Amino acid sequence: MISKAKVKHLKSLQVKKYRKQEQSFLVEGAKSVVELLNSDFEVLWLAGTRLFLNQNEETLSGIDAEIVEATDNELALSGSFQSNDGALAVAKMKVNTEAPIKNEFVLVLDDIRDPGNLGTIIRTADWYGIKKIVASEETADFYNPKVLNASMGSFCRVSMYYTQLVTFLNKSNLPIYGTFLGGTDVHKVKFDNGGLIVIGNESNGISLAVEKLIAHKITIPRFGNAESLNAAIATGVILDVVRQSKK
Amino acid sequence: MISKAKVKHLKSLQVKKYRKQEQSFLVEGAKSVVELLNSDFEVLWLAGTRLFLNQNEETLSGIDAEIVEATDNELALSGSFQSNDGALAVAKMKVNTEAPIKNEFVLVLDDIRDPGNLGTIIRTADWYGIKKIVASEETADFYNPKVLNASMGSFCRVSMYYTQLVTFLNKSNLPIYGTFLGGTDVHKVKFDNGGLIVIGNESNGISLAVEKLIAHKITIPRFGNAESLNAAIATGVILDVVRQSKK
Repeated sequence: MISKAKVKHLKSLQVKKYRKQEQSFLVEGAKSVVELLNSDFEVLWLAGTRLFLNQNEETLSGIDAEIVEATDNELALSGSFQSNDGALAVAKMKVNTEAPIKNEFVLVLDDIRDPGNLGTIIRTADWYGIKKIVASEETADFYNPKVLNASMGSFCRVSMYYTQLVTFLNKSNLPIYGTFLGGTDVHKVKFDNGGLIVIGNESNGISLAVEKLIAHKITIPRFGNAESLNAAIATGVILDVVRQSKK
Repeated sequence: MISKAKVKHLKSLQVKKYRKQEQSFLVEGAKSVVELLNSDFEVLWLAGTRLFLNQNEETLSGIDAEIVEATDNELALSGSFQSNDGALAVAKMKVNTEAPIKNEFVLVLDDIRDPGNLGTIIRTADWYGIKKIVASEETADFYNPKVLNASMGSFCRVSMYYTQLVTFLNKSNLPIYGTFLGGTDVHKVKFDNGGLIVIGNESNGISLAVEKLIAHKITIPRFGNAESLNAAIATGVILDVVRQSKK
């Protein structure tokens, strides 16, 4: 059973301010919780249906967290989604630290505001073997339940570092790519063995201050009349081209 | 001013049942309404801020619809979004008819349930010059405000036909492509001058009955660990490859 006080606590973790205060976050749904259990995140508390607890008995015996049994209804009432399919967990947030970048491609997000877009970008990055994302401080919060949900478990394999982008890009020696109308056709770009790929805000694209630091302006060729591509779609297309060009 | 009765009517158009009953739908936001005015949709009613009405005076003088002036607040209260930037319109739905397919690529959606995904797919199709989408009857409704909004105006340039997919595919003579794990690398596929590209449901992929009718199974190569790609992302990557292979 999940106590009333606990439900209140879990609900509070839907709000960034409280997540920050507690340095912990909520993971919802059996699939995501299983991925969490197999990741290097520290699980602090877990609730699951009897079925979930039985199915994951071995994994659960190895973790040092409070584990409670709950009904589907209790789980749904404690989380942010209308339904829940078996489990809910609280884990410890990772410290926001800069990781060294070596012979790899890293995404740089310049104000991705929509949690669904961010989650989809994380999932897409994971598909294409991108392990690190650097983001402006205005980008949606990695630990937002909508982000985690849209990432479909990929939040366990892709790390995110929030920082001031101009400072970050200024001190980097890596090639910096970014999408603009009127840049070089992405299919004609020779991508090196690594670099930073900047994705701009949903409405305004890449900000002027960041644009100045982008040496390689690239464009996804358009064949129809839409004004722009969704930021997550652009990420997918670019990463696909990058991986083909590396072969 | 927008009357109370009108607000009630506009709110009803957020529900599929009432849209179907009235054969009309709601378009929200200045950008989408301008695209609507320039499309072949028949506009029945329009509300705009004084600024919007002034800026679009010439276009508006050419249409045969009731036009009212409203405040931003009234517009927001009448629509489905938290804010509205200038205009709201009601237009007539198009009849669900099958259009002939000639030397072109057409998307076939096998149960895309999420309105945001569908809208993004429409926008992506428009970017890549795809003009027609065929969809299963369980696919999200084209006229759902969330679909229209995510399409960013592309709903004016891409038409959608809802039908029973097995029947539709059975009688088609065009090459049929669909994404599966373990298919041919999409980058190695020789796409013809046209064909049907099937995109599967967000959770279950392409249904078994439809799978049987797909001659060309294609796969987007994976370089990391995500289990799958979001349906709209897969659409974007495939269309990009299709357009490059045609060159």
